[in-house]
Order: sequence, then C-alpha cells, then structure tokens
Amino acid sequence: MIIVMKTHSSQQQLDHIVNKLESVDFKVHLSQGVHRTIIGVIGEKKDKETMKMKIEAMDGVEKVISILDSYKLTGRDFKPEKSVINIDGIKIGGEEVIVMAGPCSVENEEQIIKTATAVRDAGAKILRGGAYKPRTSPYSFQGLGEKGLKLMALAKQKTGLKIITELMNVEDMEMVCHYADILQIGARNMQNYSLLKAVGKINKPVMLKRGFASTIKEWLLAAEYIMKEGNHQVILCERGIRTFGEKTRNTLDLSSVPLIHKLSHLPIVVDPSHGTGKWKLVTPMARAAVACGADGLIVEVHPQPEDALSDGQQSLTPNNFQNMMYEITKIADVLERKVYCPGVVSNGII
Amino acid sequence: MIIVMKTHSSQQQLDHIVNKLESVDFKVHLSQGVHRTIIGVIGEKKDKETMKMKIEAMDGVEKVISILDSYKLTGRDFKPEKSVINIDGIKIGGEEVIVMAGPCSVENEEQIIKTATAVRDAGAKILRGGAYKPRTSPYSFQGLGEKGLKLMALAKQKTGLKIITELMNVEDMEMVCHYADILQIGARNMQNYSLLKAVGKINKPVMLKRGFASTIKEWLLAAEYIMKEGNHQVILCERGIRTFGEKTRNTLDLSSVPLIHKLSHLPIVVDPSHGTGKWKLVTPMARAAVACGADGLIVEVHPQPEDALSDGQQSLTPNNFQNMMYEITKIADVLERKVYCPGVVSNGII
Amino acid sequence: MIIVMKTHSSQQQLDHIVNKLESVDFKVHLSQGVHRTIIGVIGEKKDKETMKMKIEAMDGVEKVISILDSYKLTGRDFKPEKSVINIDGIKIGGEEVIVMAGPCSVENEEQIIKTATAVRDAGAKILRGGAYKPRTSPYSFQGLGEKGLKLMALAKQKTGLKIITELMNVEDMEMVCHYADILQIGARNMQNYSLLKAVGKINKPVMLKRGFASTIKEWLLAAEYIMKEGNHQVILCERGIRTFGEKTRNTLDLSSVPLIHKLSHLPIVVDPSHGTGKWKLVTPMARAAVACGADGLIVEVHPQPEDALSDGQQSLTPNNFQNMMYEITKIADVLERKVYCPGVVSNGII
Amino acid sequence: MIIVMKTHSSQQQLDHIVNKLESVDFKVHLSQGVHRTIIGVIGEKKDKETMKMKIEAMDGVEKVISILDSYKLTGRDFKPEKSVINIDGIKIGGEEVIVMAGPCSVENEEQIIKTATAVRDAGAKILRGGAYKPRTSPYSFQGLGEKGLKLMALAKQKTGLKIITELMNVEDMEMVCHYADILQIGARNMQNYSLLKAVGKINKPVMLKRGFASTIKEWLLAAEYIMKEGNHQVILCERGIRTFGEKTRNTLDLSSVPLIHKLSHLPIVVDPSHGTGKWKLVTPMARAAVACGADGLIVEVHPQPEDALSDGQQSLTPNNFQNMMYEITKIADVLERKVYCPGVVSNGII
Repeated sequence: MIIVMKTHSSQQQLDHIVNKLESVDFKVHLSQGVHRTIIGVIGEKKDKETMKMKIEAMDGVEKVISILDSYKLTGRDFKPEKSVINIDGIKIGGEEVIVMAGPCSVENEEQIIKTATAVRDAGAKILRGGAYKPRTSPYSFQGLGEKGLKLMALAKQKTGLKIITELMNVEDMEMVCHYADILQIGARNMQNYSLLKAVGKINKPVMLKRGFASTIKEWLLAAEYIMKEGNHQVILCERGIRTFGEKTRNTLDLSSVPLIHKLSHLPIVVDPSHGTGKWKLVTPMARAAVACGADGLIVEVHPQPEDALSDGQQSLTPNNFQNMMYEITKIADVLERKVYCPGVVSNGII
Repeated sequence: MIIVMKTHSSQQQLDHIVNKLESVDFKVHLSQGVHRTIIGVIGEKKDKETMKMKIEAMDGVEKVISILDSYKLTGRDFKPEKSVINIDGIKIGGEEVIVMAGPCSVENEEQIIKTATAVRDAGAKILRGGAYKPRTSPYSFQGLGEKGLKLMALAKQKTGLKIITELMNVEDMEMVCHYADILQIGARNMQNYSLLKAVGKINKPVMLKRGFASTIKEWLLAAEYIMKEGNHQVILCERGIRTFGEKTRNTLDLSSVPLIHKLSHLPIVVDPSHGTGKWKLVTPMARAAVACGADGLIVEVHPQPEDALSDGQQSLTPNNFQNMMYEITKIADVLERKVYCPGVVSNGII
Repeated sequence: MIIVMKTHSSQQQLDHIVNKLESVDFKVHLSQGVHRTIIGVIGEKKDKETMKMKIEAMDGVEKVISILDSYKLTGRDFKPEKSVINIDGIKIGGEEVIVMAGPCSVENEEQIIKTATAVRDAGAKILRGGAYKPRTSPYSFQGLGEKGLKLMALAKQKTGLKIITELMNVEDMEMVCHYADILQIGARNMQNYSLLKAVGKINKPVMLKRGFASTIKEWLLAAEYIMKEGNHQVILCERGIRTFGEKTRNTLDLSSVPLIHKLSHLPIVVDPSHGTGKWKLVTPMARAAVACGADGLIVEVHPQPEDALSDGQQSLTPNNFQNMMYEITKIADVLERKVYCPGVVSNGII
Repeated sequence: MIIVMKTHSSQQQLDHIVNKLESVDFKVHLSQGVHRTIIGVIGEKKDKETMKMKIEAMDGVEKVISILDSYKLTGRDFKPEKSVINIDGIKIGGEEVIVMAGPCSVENEEQIIKTATAVRDAGAKILRGGAYKPRTSPYSFQGLGEKGLKLMALAKQKTGLKIITELMNVEDMEMVCHYADILQIGARNMQNYSLLKAVGKINKPVMLKRGFASTIKEWLLAAEYIMKEGNHQVILCERGIRTFGEKTRNTLDLSSVPLIHKLSHLPIVVDPSHGTGKWKLVTPMARAAVACGADGLIVEVHPQPEDALSDGQQSLTPNNFQNMMYEITKIADVLERKVYCPGVVSNGII
C-alpha cells in the first residue's frame, strides 16, 4: 500500500498517519519526493482494504494506492501448478478441452434426451441445462424446477453425460446437489456472498461465471469466498461483459483467458453463447476461445432453436454444434491439446 | 415487437414466421419497405421476451426490435400518481425529502449511538447501518450480524429514528425484519431473484439499490419481481454505475432521477456516498440530487471516519453532515419541497 | 512511480532496473516487503510515461504504478486560485453562472435571429450555434459553413450576444476565429492533437468538450496541450460520457464538476442537452449542474424543435428555456452565485 | 423507422406527425396496438437521422426506433462479395492473412532497420512505425516527424516491406502519402471527419482504426465518410475498446471480426498489442484473432522493448514475434487460409 500525501500536508498529519499504521504493526517507509511525501506501507495484514479506506479518510492524504490484489488461495503464488478439476474422470484444466453443451432451459423429456444424445455423439462430455432460470423479467419462463432436474438425470442415465446446472439460492442446494455433477453460479449471483459461502462448504465442483460488470480482481475474490470455506474445486467461466456495444448481447472478453492463466491456477471455460447472443457468432468465437487457451467451452444447443423457451437466438442446432466440434478439434490440435470429437482423427484430419 | 426481415428473405420464410405468430394469437401487420419486409406484431402477451428470442432464431430474420418495456406494476401506465411509502408517518415520495444517514457498518455501541444522535439532531429521519456486509474480499470485515442489529435497535430506542439495514439472504429475513423498518437490497443482489421474491411476500418497505451495471429497464424489472409477489412498498435507490471513470468509485447517474419519475410511480432516493466514494464530493452531489428531484438521500456518516471499519473515505463527519443538511434544505426550498433540518427556517434562511 | 517486482524476481533483474533508472538521474528507493521488492522512483522528469512503459517491458517486473498525474499547467498546484476567462466583460469562472444557448445548427436567418433574441431576453449571455457539424453519418446535414457563421454574426449584431461555435479543423481556424468569440472543440476532437496545438497558438478562448469516453486525466491532458502552446484561456465542458445506459444519449457525469474544481483551476461548463439527449431531462439536470457548482451551462434551444435540422429531440423551446433560467437562478442563489435572468430578483423570488 | 406514440396521445398529435411525414414523401403505416398507436415509416430518404430527431421532439411521441443502419457503401447489401485491398500484390482480404509489424515509434536508423529485417525474415509483409505520434500527454515523445518517414523509406528499400504509418492531420497528408503505402487513421481520429473526407479524396489505401469507445455502427459510418468521397480502399482495424477492465489497456472485442464480415465487405485487421497493452497477451490474442477470421494482424515489435520510446510494455521481441508467426500459421491452416512464414511448411508442420 502506498500513501501519497498532498503537496501542502503538514508534518503533524504525516506523524498521525505513521503512528496509526505502526500501532497496528505495519512497517512504514517514508520517501520524500520533489513535491510530495510518499509513505510505503509493508505488512502481512489480511484486511488491507479496511486500512486503505481509513487512511483515505485522513487529513493530508491525496490518495492511497493498493500494490497487490488481496486474493490468496486463487493465486498462482499460493499454488504454482494448474489445478485440474476431476469429475469422475473428466478432467477440466488438463490436456483435454472439455465441452459442455445443452439447452438453455430444460423444457420436456423429448427435448432434453434429443439434445443430450446429439451433443454426446458430437463429443460433449457434460450436459448443460437450466431448471431454475434467473430471468430479467418476472413474466418470462422461470424453469421447470425439480421436474427439470429429474429430466436431466434421465438424460444422464441414457447418455452417460455428466450434468451441470445452475443453483440460484441456498435453500435449493441440497436438492440440486442430488442431481448435479457441477453446480453453476450464474453471472447475476457472482457476488451473492451467502450463496458463495454455502457452496464453499460442500464437496462438489462449482463453475463460477464472471459477473457481467465484474473486474478480474472481483471475480477471483468471489472464487476466494468459495475456496476460503474449504471447497477448492472451482472452475471459472468467462461469459462476456457489459459494454456500450450495440450488436452483441455482451462483449466476450477473451483476454481474460490468458490473464486468468497468468494470475490463477484455476481452470477457465468460455461461454460463446451468452458472450455474443447470436448463434452465427458462436462458432468463430468458440474457435478463438480454444486458440487463446480456454480449458473448456459451454455452449447452448437446441434441436429447434425457434421453439426454445429461452435463448433460441443464441442456440446452435445439433448440426451446427457438430461443425463447431470439428473446427475446435483442429484448433486444439495446434495448441497440442485434445478435444474429444468422434470421427475426427486427433491430428486434425476428418 | 417489430421483425425486420433480411433483404433476400423468401416468401416461405415470411409465411413460416407469420403462421407461428398467428398460431399463438398475435396479430401481424406486414409492411413492404423498399428493400425489406417489416412485420409488426401486436398482442397482449406477457412473455414477449421469449417469443422475441424464438423469432431471432428463425431463418430470414435480420433482427427483432422490442417496442415496449415489459414492466407493468412499476410503470406510470399502471399507476399514474406517485407512490408514497409511509413508515410510521415518515413519508418517502411526498413533499418532504427524507434523509437516511449513519455508518457503513455498525461497529459498537458508542459509535452507533453517537452517530444516531448526531444525524437525528441534524435532521435525518432514518438511521442506516450495516450488520451484514457484502464485501468484495472475504478477508474484509463482514459485519457484526445480529449483534449489530441489536445495537441499531438500541439506537432507535434512544433517538426515535427508523432503521434501514441490508438483507443479504432469505435465511436471515425473519430476523432482520424483526429489527428493520426498511429492508435494503444491495446493488450486488439486485438480480438475486430468490431474494426479491422472498421480500415480495412480506409486508415491509424495501429499498432496492440499482445494480452497478444495471440498466433502468433491468432495475424496474427487479422492482417488478417484488411487486408481483404482492409487496408494493418499493423505494428505488440510485447509487452510481460502473464506467471507465478512474477518479470516483462509481459514476452517479443523476439523470436516472427524472427518468424514473417519468417512467415509474415509485419514489427514488440517491446515495452520494457510494455514488462518488469520496467524502468531499458527497455534499455537492447531495445538492445536485435534491435539485433534480430526488425523494430522499442515504448518506454515510461516521464520528471518526479514519477509524471506520469500512467506507471511511466516503463518510461525512457529523459536522460535515450538518452542513450538507443546511445546504440541501435551501435547495429543496427552491423546488417547493421540504427537508427537516432543525435550526433552518423553511424559507432557506438560517 | 512505484515498481512492483515479481515474487521470484532475481537480484540481477533488480540491479538492472535500478541501474537503468539511476543512469537517467532518477532517485531510487528500495523497499523489501514480505514477499516482494517494491521500488520507489523519485525525480522531476517530464516524460515519466515513457519510462513507465519501458520498465513494464523489463524482466522481473510485475507492474508499474504511476503516483501522480502528469498535468502541470492545468493543475491546482500550478495555479491555486480559480481561473476566470473574460470575454469582453463576460466572466466565466467567476461569481456569475454564464448561460450559453442557441440551436444545434444554424439553419437560416429567421431561425437564428429568433432564437438569439429569445435566449438573450431570458438571460443567456452567449449564443451557441453550429456552422460546421460533426455528424456520425455522412448523409446527415453537415452545417451551412461560412454562411452559418455570417448569420451568427448578424445575430450578434442584433442582440449583443457573444458567439461560441465549433472548429473542426486547422484549415478553417482563421475564418472561424473571425466570427467566434469562443472556439468550441467538440467531444470527437478532444484528442485531435493537431487541432489542440493549433488553437493553443492563438489568443482566443477555447471551450474543450470532454470526449465521450475520456477520463478526467485525459481531458486535463488535452487542455494541457492547448495551454502548453501558450493559450491559457481554456474552459472545460462536461457533456456526458458513454456507458451501457439505454435511455439517455449519454450519462451526464456531474461528479466531474466538483472533481475538476478540486484538481484544476479551469472553469467548467455543463451541457445537459447532449448529456441527456432528451429535452424533458434538460431542466432538471441544468438545476443539478448549477447545484453542484458548474460555472456555466450550454443549452440547445430551437424555436420549433420539430423542424430542427439536428438535435430537435433535445432542444428546449424558448418558453421552456425561460423556465429553466428562472429555476437555475434560484439554485444559484443558494450557492451565493448569480444568474442573469431578467425578471427574477436576485434573491430568488419572481 | 418506427414511431411509438404515448398511451394517451391524441388524434390531433397523430395527424400532425402523419402530415409532416407525408409532406416529405415518406409512406406511413398506422398500426393500432392494444394500448398504443405505432407508426411505421417507409421511404428511401438518405437523411432519416434528422427526421428521427425532429419526430422525437414532437408532442405525443414516446420514442422513435431506427430499423436499419444508414451505411450504404460499406454494407454487404451494396457489395455482397468481400473486398480485397491490393497493395502492389499484397492482398488484404484474400486467402492470405497479412501481418504488419514494427515498432510503435520510429526512433533511429539502427532500430528501424533491425526491426524491419527481423519482421520480414519472420514473414511480415508490411512495416508499421509511427513518425507522428498521438500521445495522451504533451510531454511524451511526439515522434520524429518527416525524419521518421525517411527512415521508414530506407527500411522499405532495404527489406522490400510495404509501409503503413499514421496520418494525424490534413496538412501532412501530401508528405505522408509520399512515403506510405497505407495511411493509418488512429483510434482518436476515427471521427475526425475533416481528415476522413480528405483521405477519401486520394488514391491510397487507408486503415481505419476503431475508436476506443465507438460502436460498430459508428465505425462503419466513419468508413462510409471515406468511401463516399471516392476512395474505396478501406481496411478496418479492431484495436480494443474502453471498458471498466482494470488489467488490460483495452478490451479486445474479437466478436467484431465475424460481425464486420457479416455486415460489411471490407477487410478487418486486429491489433493485439494495443488491444491488450501487455506483450504476454499478444500471442494468445493473435492466435484467437486469426481463429475467428481476421484478415490480418498489426503487431508491435521492438528489438529492445525496455529501451522503446513508446509502448515497450506491449512490444514483442523479434524472437517472440517469430514464435507468434509459427503459431498463427498453423491456426490459419485450420481455416484454410495462409500466413507467409518462412520455415513453416503450409500444412502446419515446422
């Protein structure tokens, strides 16, 4: 933490701050610049944020600058090697690029079985599908609830796919855990700390979507909430951020992929469906995501997008999904990673 | 809803869409432009969003444009006159501009009693104070919990102030309701729909803060979630949005005040403390908020900001708060509204 | 400038950086934290930005943090007292809040004379009007050019108002200067450095609009470009920034007003017309601008907004403008500032 | 254009609008919704934007919605097949992915010759280098001016590379054209319409960088300014947009690549150096750019980034650049496009 004093701050103000800091065991390093005094603050306090806020309130202070982000467990310093989340043999964060696919919402048995079969046949390892849907309008379809989870369990039984589904609140946790192999925390709940703490206490992988206006730091600190409670099986998911952009639903921030790999050991998955909101952009952005190092993809697929109860505009048909799988298999090959895509030989030739 | 067809879309594609719409009782209005066919869609369907997504997935469609936002209960069309939320005689949305003030976090008895007394003496009607704190880092102070609520109850007893405090999850609702006169839903939870539905089922005023990257439409739809469940006592709170701005914590979007008044009957309160993140900007922005029509203010006050456990940098001292009250009283006067500020005669002369 | 070394950086990397800095006469201050070495860099070099970029490229460096912004002439440190720009007796930055008003574009003699007379009668001191219009589409009306300037000169002659008009390029500068009392640099040209340097070399007040996605720092550095060439008569103009907001043309960032007053001695004017894009929001936001300390306003007025060749949707009628003037006069009164508004006695009573 | 009337608008207001529209030869299509009247407006007017603004100013109007963007020459409707810009045999927009590389600023002969030789040997076809530099601070290095251009000419002579360099104003155009094979219009000048019109009148390819807060529509309309004057040799360049992101210089919006390909026939190049601001992110994002369909890349390379006079932190060394070329060659191969990379056989095996 660096404290920049005002040009005309007094010695008394300086002393006051230094005493305050030393009284709580920070070491202080004064440095007299041409016009300003700068105070360097050293110490292994966990709650530097609070101290920063206090000092910003003091007289004579121009500003306070944090030097280091305060994540610990999520950081590469804590764990230099990459984490691999193992779901019964499916490894996220390893050599293979794992693809999760399925409808936005579970709608009925035919739809989910048909989709599950199609995505499995094209190489997906995990079935996505929403039973509880966070919708902007209370008048939009809110999901089938437990009935939807049961249909996903049926699809799992028929196809062997693992299941990822969204958990929206603590009350439903036990029930959702009964069906899901991975819990998804949605973008709107990225800073729902009660929920993060709750999923931190169980033994089940959690995929944490980036809030649509969250910084990388806030995202990692949200993951830190989960890990601090004991659950280290966290997967991050980039799904686009909100900008002034007018032609896509969100702006897919792919630079977060290499950035996260630099800062954190956690695996990162990309959602090109929500990231663009337009199915025609999904495949090019899926290629780009794999090209910059994503550990996985989560993609919306619907047998008849024009009949989908949600997100039809950004859903691939099974055919388009199969094409996407072919293409990313070849991109993964360039990076010496693998995608499981039946019918594509591993060196990228169909 | 307006559907814009592609330049080279076929008659068959057009027919398919029209049939789809008519099959669910929408009326359709074709309009043949110079290069494009435009389809106007008329009907009183609640879930137009879903239909929009479906059509965006259809062949031949260039884009689909929503004509009207889908809020009902929050809109001026539903209730032309302004709503007044009455908390035991304190009326938010009426002639008086109501001021809520207090510390970011409740810390101890002395702090909360001292602050409550000071803000009451300066004219505040409602005491703010956090017992459960949503903090970006899990290592930051998380609030005193129920102990904090009890201290607020004590302050209420001693000062006669009403209490507003944040509710972070459904589990704590009964307990928090026991102490609070108004429940606050924080910015991070604006789209925590489980929480919104829960507070929609009780009989207690709710102040809904705008999410830091939420549009006006999303904010009103979040309020709609609460009202749809039956609780119509909703107060909106503008607290700044996230932008590229580098010198303030958020960008206080004051234009939301007259906009909300135009679109909705709900009262709106402004938080210049979080809106700027710098105590020196709080008073000028409080004046501006009242000048553009805010129904109330919520302001952070701490007896010694430099010792605050959170948000010291944006907290006013009791003295500065008193000055703010003087100034906004005179601004309110210009708008023929009142602020309760002991010692200031209503025509603005001290 | 603070350099944060990586956790596992070597002594050699550290030495290399220190040598580099000392070789160009920076003083260096090492501080060994618990996990990291931090290098404080002290020196009165003008081009710290370049040095920062170089060091960020060096091995072993985690990041480099600037301590101080690099503006000099625009800063309060350079000139503690507020600057007043004097245009033949009209003083911007003094006690009076100066109002500039007029149409977006000059269209014809009747329109400009009618508008000029109306805004003068309501208290405006300066006539705004575009002769050269920067329009997003090349197919939109581009302004009357010199013919428009001549019409403004005629209006000046008939009403006594001063003239502000936009300069879009260096080639037109001499001609535009012939007619204008203040040159306006538009938001799109805020970082057109060739233009800034050119207007820095003449003796004519310049109003510099904030770029729609420019930070406060970039804005002040753009002003610095003008002042560095010798022209110190710079007025800043906040006109709204681009955000995700969907219901206003821009988000009017009023907190920039007290911020600029804190950082700089330059006067600041607010444009609530472009800042909102909706005429119904102009008056409330004009009140708010004056309430938080604006030194002036620039407002679009058109005798018949529905016939305007540009910006009709955000233009006030002369009647609405007069009402606005009444209201801001009374707000200014609260701040012990004045607005010239014929018919309003200075203590705010009509 | 669609006009949405207010709920309680009158027949008189409706008639007034309809008459206005019909008086300027628009066709009007009334559609009576459940609560509102909607007016569809049809006509091949070029200046619909102005008409939109006028109508927004009329009584009884809730809002006006544009149906179609107003670009013509840049659109796929105007020219369905992709444009290829041919610079003496180097074709941008064709099968080959063209790489432009070089230093941010030209600094001296040794630097530019060394860099040019290295990038040519690794496969670049065009040398980038700034002689006139738009810098945020007037105290930063502003470029060598014509001396820099002469050094680039020397490098061209020695290496055979074509030259791209930035043009900042109309006055320098003739001189810069004398040296450059492609003129670059920088992000800050994307809406400098005087400059766009000037380069529209010459016969020289122009690369138009996206403004850092410009929408896709504004960007294409800026290109439209150039094309409307007669110069159809326009190359677009995505270089990142401004968001709240805190860890990268900009947010590289790669979805603009497939979007531009859908909307426009113009080729699009990606700048991962400015797009990220960190050299470690350049290669992954270069791979992603090629993977989603970019027609070219522009990359900063410096023999000793730590000595660069600008942008050292985001410059690749010649070695890193060579690695980048290897990797994108293989990605291009997957898309059945080519990159010229000596030493890499076209099927992607080194």
